Amino acid sequence: MHVTHQDLLNLEDRYRANFVNSLSGFKSANLVGTADDEGNTNLAIVSSVFHLGANPPLIGMISRPHSVARDTLENIQSVGEYTINHVNNGIWKRAHQTSARYPREVSEFDAVGLTPQWQEGVRAPFVAESRLKYSLALISSQTIDLNGVVLLIGEITHLHVEREAIAEGGYIDIESLGSIAVSGLDNYHVTDSLGRLTYAKPHTKPEIFG
Amino acid sequence: MHVTHQDLLNLEDRYRANFVNSLSGFKSANLVGTADDEGNTNLAIVSSVFHLGANPPLIGMISRPHSVARDTLENIQSVGEYTINHVNNGIWKRAHQTSARYPREVSEFDAVGLTPQWQEGVRAPFVAESRLKYSLALISSQTIDLNGVVLLIGEITHLHVEREAIAEGGYIDIESLGSIAVSGLDNYHVTDSLGRLTYAKPHTKPEIFG
Repeated sequence: MHVTHQDLLNLEDRYRANFVNSLSGFKSANLVGTADDEGNTNLAIVSSVFHLGANPPLIGMISRPHSVARDTLENIQSVGEYTINHVNNGIWKRAHQTSARYPREVSEFDAVGLTPQWQEGVRAPFVAESRLKYSLALISSQTIDLNGVVLLIGEITHLHVEREAIAEGGYIDIESLGSIAVSGLDNYHVTDSLGRLTYAKPHTKPEIFG
Repeated sequence: MHVTHQDLLNLEDRYRANFVNSLSGFKSANLVGTADDEGNTNLAIVSSVFHLGANPPLIGMISRPHSVARDTLENIQSVGEYTINHVNNGIWKRAHQTSARYPREVSEFDAVGLTPQWQEGVRAPFVAESRLKYSLALISSQTIDLNGVVLLIGEITHLHVEREAIAEGGYIDIESLGSIAVSGLDNYHVTDSLGRLTYAKPHTKPEIFG
């Protein structure tokens, strides 16, 4: 089936959102924890967190200013700190429920039944039920003129992970932590590893290891 | 286990790369097809493609100028077009092998055994073996000063997908296409859907549908 640029523009908005959100492939599922200047907490599921660089350790995230998650964006820009918490197979439905349009004064932690966890020196709550999570200091916030979304870049300040998940060479076995993948807007997936492949070289074939 | 910012900086480079690349969660697995001004093809696996917006349909990608994939970046910036092709469970090892450091004059298509497929009007090759693929016109290329990586933004021009994969409301069932997820630098995963969840509202619980 061949779809042109014009075909995409002609789609009904909700249909197009579903369709185009499926195109990048599997996405990460994370909960973003924030607090406002008075310490009121907020929690939002996002599928737009991505790796930006290892040295320094930088994490990117795309935020939509007019979406349900606008409180999250305001808190991040005001306080300058936030947490990223992997969604796992024990909390995926509660995580999804954070995307409901709750009134500003309602904390999604309370509304969906997740537990804020505080780390000394970090002004944003972690999710106690998440098994891999880290706090970020905001170092760049930039509007993409093409469509008005905001690219947030944060540097990792503190990280919590279950030690058993750290495998050979520093790889973290996020499948063993039950971490979830997302496709489109609303489909959640557990994973089954095909294997880790050796570093590719021109005259050898990749092999499964580990 | 608690890891601080300083702990991360103290890690050996390769260990840190493995570790930090695991933190964002599952990543998309795509092959980027390009050609130079003379039509010589190039193919590179990337895990840094992400959804940027549905209207207009925009796809983001992070590229490292000094990496193995530097030919890809040069071709994109020179020609202004590229293709994104989902890696599936039939081609994942060949896809990984494109990350080997082949000489510039070798096409990774030939080297790993994948087939270039041309669409009239597009100056970049698709991967015939991929079951969901699209071409992009480059509309923005921007260096992130913090670490020198390049953020490429493209608009979708042509798309090819198997019609059977398009489900209710425009969602594309990428799991049915065998699309792969990546974790860390080298682990590949097939997926098993837990279900699609209904649009979240404050006073209802999400339910599985579809």
